[in-house]
Amino acid sequence: MSTEIATLGEFGLIRHLTEGLENRQPSTRYGIGDDAAVIARSEGKQTLITTDLLLEGVHFDLTYVPLKHLGYKAAVVNFSDIYAMNGTPTQITVSLGVSKRFSVEDMEALYAGIRLACEEYEVDIVGGDTTSSMTGLTISITCLGEAGKEQIVYRNGARETDLICVSGDLGAAYMGLQLLEREKMVLKGTDLSIQPDFTGREYLLERQLKPEARRDIIRQLAEDQVKPTAMMDISDGLSSEILHICTQSKVGCRLYEEHLPIDYQTAAMAEELNMNVSTCALNGGEDYELLFTVPLSAYDKVSQMDGVRVIGHITKPELGCALVTRDGQEFELKAQGWNPLQ
Amino acid sequence: MSTEIATLGEFGLIRHLTEGLENRQPSTRYGIGDDAAVIARSEGKQTLITTDLLLEGVHFDLTYVPLKHLGYKAAVVNFSDIYAMNGTPTQITVSLGVSKRFSVEDMEALYAGIRLACEEYEVDIVGGDTTSSMTGLTISITCLGEAGKEQIVYRNGARETDLICVSGDLGAAYMGLQLLEREKMVLKGTDLSIQPDFTGREYLLERQLKPEARRDIIRQLAEDQVKPTAMMDISDGLSSEILHICTQSKVGCRLYEEHLPIDYQTAAMAEELNMNVSTCALNGGEDYELLFTVPLSAYDKVSQMDGVRVIGHITKPELGCALVTRDGQEFELKAQGWNPLQ
Repeated sequence: MSTEIATLGEFGLIRHLTEGLENRQPSTRYGIGDDAAVIARSEGKQTLITTDLLLEGVHFDLTYVPLKHLGYKAAVVNFSDIYAMNGTPTQITVSLGVSKRFSVEDMEALYAGIRLACEEYEVDIVGGDTTSSMTGLTISITCLGEAGKEQIVYRNGARETDLICVSGDLGAAYMGLQLLEREKMVLKGTDLSIQPDFTGREYLLERQLKPEARRDIIRQLAEDQVKPTAMMDISDGLSSEILHICTQSKVGCRLYEEHLPIDYQTAAMAEELNMNVSTCALNGGEDYELLFTVPLSAYDKVSQMDGVRVIGHITKPELGCALVTRDGQEFELKAQGWNPLQ
Repeated sequence: MSTEIATLGEFGLIRHLTEGLENRQPSTRYGIGDDAAVIARSEGKQTLITTDLLLEGVHFDLTYVPLKHLGYKAAVVNFSDIYAMNGTPTQITVSLGVSKRFSVEDMEALYAGIRLACEEYEVDIVGGDTTSSMTGLTISITCLGEAGKEQIVYRNGARETDLICVSGDLGAAYMGLQLLEREKMVLKGTDLSIQPDFTGREYLLERQLKPEARRDIIRQLAEDQVKPTAMMDISDGLSSEILHICTQSKVGCRLYEEHLPIDYQTAAMAEELNMNVSTCALNGGEDYELLFTVPLSAYDKVSQMDGVRVIGHITKPELGCALVTRDGQEFELKAQGWNPLQ
């Protein structure tokens, strides 16, 4: 079925998409339906705010990204930024720009993904804007979160001898993108009977199409009473992110190639594509894992934490930022992360 | 001068545009530079949030809108939403999608407008996102504001016999748009020596290109200790907005044509274009005036307030929503406001 969006109009479409939404967060005093939403934090809590703009053809390709997955991911990447401050995401606003190519059913699918993410992470949708666009799909999500003042972790607190930790594994989302791009090329060929074969690579696809934010790690750190000295999420690649932490903390670092966490599927795919898997782990984006530093005294705790790997340590600034390879050589780290302006 | 944006890259461009930004609001604990900004409200204050997505070719036409004006307006329309809750805007995030057509200097002009608006209204820029776009310019601004719990005014509080008030005058921004569109058509013709003549119509242009949010009215209401029962800002046209208030408040209304505030330039332009000026005042959008209701007991105060006009009153719901013309006839009000999805 395909219903033209114009038949509903702006208010009709918003009403339709947000029907039955319930607010779960006690801080949400008023959601959709007025000039602004109203949020009341409980005493001692501060508000975090982050925002993300996603444009068709730049950040996503609808030939292989299902709209529901896109909606889910668009919400989750914002949650990830809030967790990276050691906070809890609580509310989002969702603005959509939609060209005539899209139907009401398309928008339902997109919104279903956003709503699913909000249910999973207990986040309220409290506002937004919906409008037509001349070309393609635009998604702008702003996320609010909360955290106690003493709980917030910035990028600038890493100190000499701190351990550098990372959650999960790296490079898989990038490999998933390579896989999808390759299949797209194949399908562009003449023989439409070829079906993409993703067997044994489901993890790569999932990491690219349906990433999760590491709420579990934030909870684990709180339970174990480990407060990171610096933290951020890995959206542009490990190399680029650790350089942000080192620059803002005015320190240097050493990362050890042998400790980079890499999934078997990532390694196999890299080999197939003749790519260096460490390079993929360092520079591939969209992992949405947490990168954080902890004092040396927390070694016992973090080394036993499920899904956390110690990959290096912080040094004096004079020593610069480098990767130590398996054979002991040092290579200066460079931000080769994805540049959406090139 | 024209510098390609790619030469700076994403982080470089953001750094360049936000250079020298200072935070003025005591609630801004951390602005640009981390995964999220940190806001701490003083006790008793709640947080308001509103967002607006502006797309080239749909919401603005760069053939006659200077980028600096566009930036100013994009910020101010968000402030207007916060005032419409009887709050004070405090922070914004700014996300930009920019095609290759735009230079660093273009972005400087746009950002200069946003920064100017923020200076005028004492609002901090605390975050955002900048990315390339395949086509045109995308501006997504989210605004936070604050208000005491008891101070917030919703759309749903209008009661029978309440007076309906509006600030400033109506229809001028719409006439300004007509004027600009007409001149654009003229300039599309063969004779490029024709220069648009805007003499005597400066007010219409200003209302369209550089609207202001009615902070002064919000302050006046507070000083006079008048708390509106319902309020919103007029972005889609008076008719559409009063219907929102009536629907949400479950009441009816009578507006009086003879009381609609209309500027001389608006009336003259409407006559020239053979348009009914009351229709322009009712359905022309982008006035960013405040529409609010007050108890009958506040009549003396609001009738003496500078820049405020009483234009009608709230009725029982059974009576519906109508405009009473100069000759006493009643016409049902309809939302003919601008539909950005058609």
